[in-house]
Amino acid sequence: MLEDWLKSYRPEELFDKHGRLLAELAELAPTGERRMGANPHANGGILLRDLRMPDFQDYAVDVPTPGVRGIGDTHVLGRFLRDVATLNGKQRNFRIFVPDETLSNGLEALFEVTQRQWDAATVANDEFLAPSGRVLDSMLSEHQCEGWLEGYLLTGRHGLFNCYEAFIHIIDSMFNQHAKWLKVTAHLPWRRKIASLNYLLASHVWRQDHNGFTHQDPGFIDHVVNKKAEVVRVYFPPDANCLLSVMDHCLRSRHYVNVVIAGKHPAPQWLSMEAAVKHCTQGISIWQWASNDQEAETDVVMACCGDVPTLETLAAVSILREHLPDLKIRVVNVVNLMKLQPQSEHPHGLSDADFDTIFTKDKPVIFAFHAYPWLIHRLTYRRTNHDNFHVRGYKEEGTISTPFDMTVVNDLDRFHLVMDAIDRLPQTGDKGSYLKQQLKDKLVEHRQYINQYGRDMPEIRDWMWR
Amino acid sequence: MLEDWLKSYRPEELFDKHGRLLAELAELAPTGERRMGANPHANGGILLRDLRMPDFQDYAVDVPTPGVRGIGDTHVLGRFLRDVATLNGKQRNFRIFVPDETLSNGLEALFEVTQRQWDAATVANDEFLAPSGRVLDSMLSEHQCEGWLEGYLLTGRHGLFNCYEAFIHIIDSMFNQHAKWLKVTAHLPWRRKIASLNYLLASHVWRQDHNGFTHQDPGFIDHVVNKKAEVVRVYFPPDANCLLSVMDHCLRSRHYVNVVIAGKHPAPQWLSMEAAVKHCTQGISIWQWASNDQEAETDVVMACCGDVPTLETLAAVSILREHLPDLKIRVVNVVNLMKLQPQSEHPHGLSDADFDTIFTKDKPVIFAFHAYPWLIHRLTYRRTNHDNFHVRGYKEEGTISTPFDMTVVNDLDRFHLVMDAIDRLPQTGDKGSYLKQQLKDKLVEHRQYINQYGRDMPEIRDWMWR
Repeated sequence: MLEDWLKSYRPEELFDKHGRLLAELAELAPTGERRMGANPHANGGILLRDLRMPDFQDYAVDVPTPGVRGIGDTHVLGRFLRDVATLNGKQRNFRIFVPDETLSNGLEALFEVTQRQWDAATVANDEFLAPSGRVLDSMLSEHQCEGWLEGYLLTGRHGLFNCYEAFIHIIDSMFNQHAKWLKVTAHLPWRRKIASLNYLLASHVWRQDHNGFTHQDPGFIDHVVNKKAEVVRVYFPPDANCLLSVMDHCLRSRHYVNVVIAGKHPAPQWLSMEAAVKHCTQGISIWQWASNDQEAETDVVMACCGDVPTLETLAAVSILREHLPDLKIRVVNVVNLMKLQPQSEHPHGLSDADFDTIFTKDKPVIFAFHAYPWLIHRLTYRRTNHDNFHVRGYKEEGTISTPFDMTVVNDLDRFHLVMDAIDRLPQTGDKGSYLKQQLKDKLVEHRQYINQYGRDMPEIRDWMWR
Repeated sequence: MLEDWLKSYRPEELFDKHGRLLAELAELAPTGERRMGANPHANGGILLRDLRMPDFQDYAVDVPTPGVRGIGDTHVLGRFLRDVATLNGKQRNFRIFVPDETLSNGLEALFEVTQRQWDAATVANDEFLAPSGRVLDSMLSEHQCEGWLEGYLLTGRHGLFNCYEAFIHIIDSMFNQHAKWLKVTAHLPWRRKIASLNYLLASHVWRQDHNGFTHQDPGFIDHVVNKKAEVVRVYFPPDANCLLSVMDHCLRSRHYVNVVIAGKHPAPQWLSMEAAVKHCTQGISIWQWASNDQEAETDVVMACCGDVPTLETLAAVSILREHLPDLKIRVVNVVNLMKLQPQSEHPHGLSDADFDTIFTKDKPVIFAFHAYPWLIHRLTYRRTNHDNFHVRGYKEEGTISTPFDMTVVNDLDRFHLVMDAIDRLPQTGDKGSYLKQQLKDKLVEHRQYINQYGRDMPEIRDWMWR
């Protein structure tokens, strides 16, 4: 049977009497770049051209003093992305892929210069549709966006996937395969590096108070950090200037997966552009302007990662400073999550010496985190001061409520953070006990107020850093 | 405009002059179980009937001595599931959902009594297709299987999703929504509990040596344990008798998500059915027959979770006992992963006292784990002895190779486990140093052998516990 089957290919018509392939047949094989393994479209790095980038600092938000109100961080970023799209219009090598959320994620500035690409019929009320456009946003399918973008990157172009945080899990399995491909090809000498796969998760867990529990899941990054450290990066810019700095970096990078998580709602702005560049370049830093331990021994480190945790931490610090003025408090903000991992595990990891300098070797650390709290433990369990880390984050609580209530039901709000600090600072004594009682009362007041009015208390809505 | 629009509903035809809905219209509304909120199909627990279950102990594998060769654990389970299907044939309330993998996951026994349900055309070579059957396995779509099963459970039936481990990530987002639904409905008094959503992940990371890197991802459980502890359960039966005991428990349970990870390849069997029932009921236990520290102070705990890690750990223990006979070694096996978490975090969590009794308060623990190693740290970071935990697991290394080589490239193999123990046991002195050297030589020998022969060394393939 085997012989019959092999003979059915009629080898006598293909090979000469010495067993060599006939010359006229060998000539049929393509040469040079037409060979399958040498086709530049299958090794997109060969075709890759640098993006033409505007200076991100030109889009800076003016922050004369920390805590000024912003317009929503992604709205600021939208103007920068708009000009990236314009500058590369002739190169035609930059696209944004979105499952029907460009507007709801705050990137409306894009439609000043480009459209949603759409080649089917249109009707009177359609918005921003055209046969050609740099935004692919006319199909509510995360799968389709991921597949389009992967193909776009693999053939040597640049792009960004803009998605709701909870629903990016839809492409977990596709991300897996792309990350595995990056890991393997990074070590093949003939493979050229391609542009990074950039995710902008812009409608995140803490501002899904109106959509409810189904829209609350910050776990994509847990999935991402399981992949090989050399190819994954995760960023939590706390304000618009930091977001600009981070996104500029991501768009210029090669052969990574970058996950950037940012807010779209009006929120406080903390850093001037000059300070933001310094902060984001380091990835983690002590916010000196918010700390008061410069001249004395630190009592407690208040750490934060993510825009809402940063707001709640600074509000907690302002309560501590008002009511317990003797406490020496250090505020640490994390933009680049992988700074927390040991250097042996991730190329961005802080040295143990640097980590100890920032987080101390033995003081309590109250860590307010954007996502599931145990991820911080997983990244820091080998650090000197890990036993003193107390992490708050999302723990699968939430429903349709107010924005501040989302933090309250997950114990991430300013009042819980202050109580967490007091619990670990016996030196606060009776003053601490009475403050704790006041804050518990405040939480009851909060509950009653939102039940009655359906919005947060004025002191929450109008709170400003001073 | 508002008034015009509201008037367009012609309220004068619907309400009387007192503003009451006309009686003849009110009568149109359904009553009793026909009301949308009271329809039993929308509250499936009302319709749920217990499965008729055979005695799982009747399917026991004979294990006269630990280490006898098995036929592949899921092949044994297949006979049990076959009879569950038969016993509930008249009730028609049990189905297995599989993306085209019933045979490749080792559940061929099902086709002795039922078929793949299929209502389209058939051709000559089709296997096991029929218009009616208890197996839904004719479409390679994990999404379709998950959706079918969720609907089946929500309307009051029982089922099992059988899938390749790496590709279950495809339904991460669908799992999320089901888990969130379970968490919320568990606290609604009028909602009756439904059958658990059971996952059997049967072609796992450690035996994807022939499919390669794309098929290697044990991270679904990282995703699962982010959801509320009250609804999620994760099991790693180390052999067929344990798998039978675990699956019997899962099929009887209510309102959980159970993830069971099991092997399909011939592998050693460790526990008699009597021992398996004891072990699985506790979820974690010291394997006394493999330990030698009963009468003296423990030197090292060799812990394992998952079938391949259990094999490698016992092989490591046999090397340690042969070469370093003075060492007092304790072997711990974990079936129920959530036993590791603190009681405050998961209802299955061991008390700290129990945990300390099993893992000691201060001895090195070499933990061989099926999945990503940091998950063990995340679950145990609050435990007394956590600083002495050294965990090996999958770390995104692997390609098309031999089964044993998969463990070698991830440092989970017996030789690495022994070296890990020696590194933490200074009392092994020169004997330890020389043993370590031998094992490093052995790893080179392994590499050369598989490069030459394409299969594992005889001493690996034929190793038996003694």
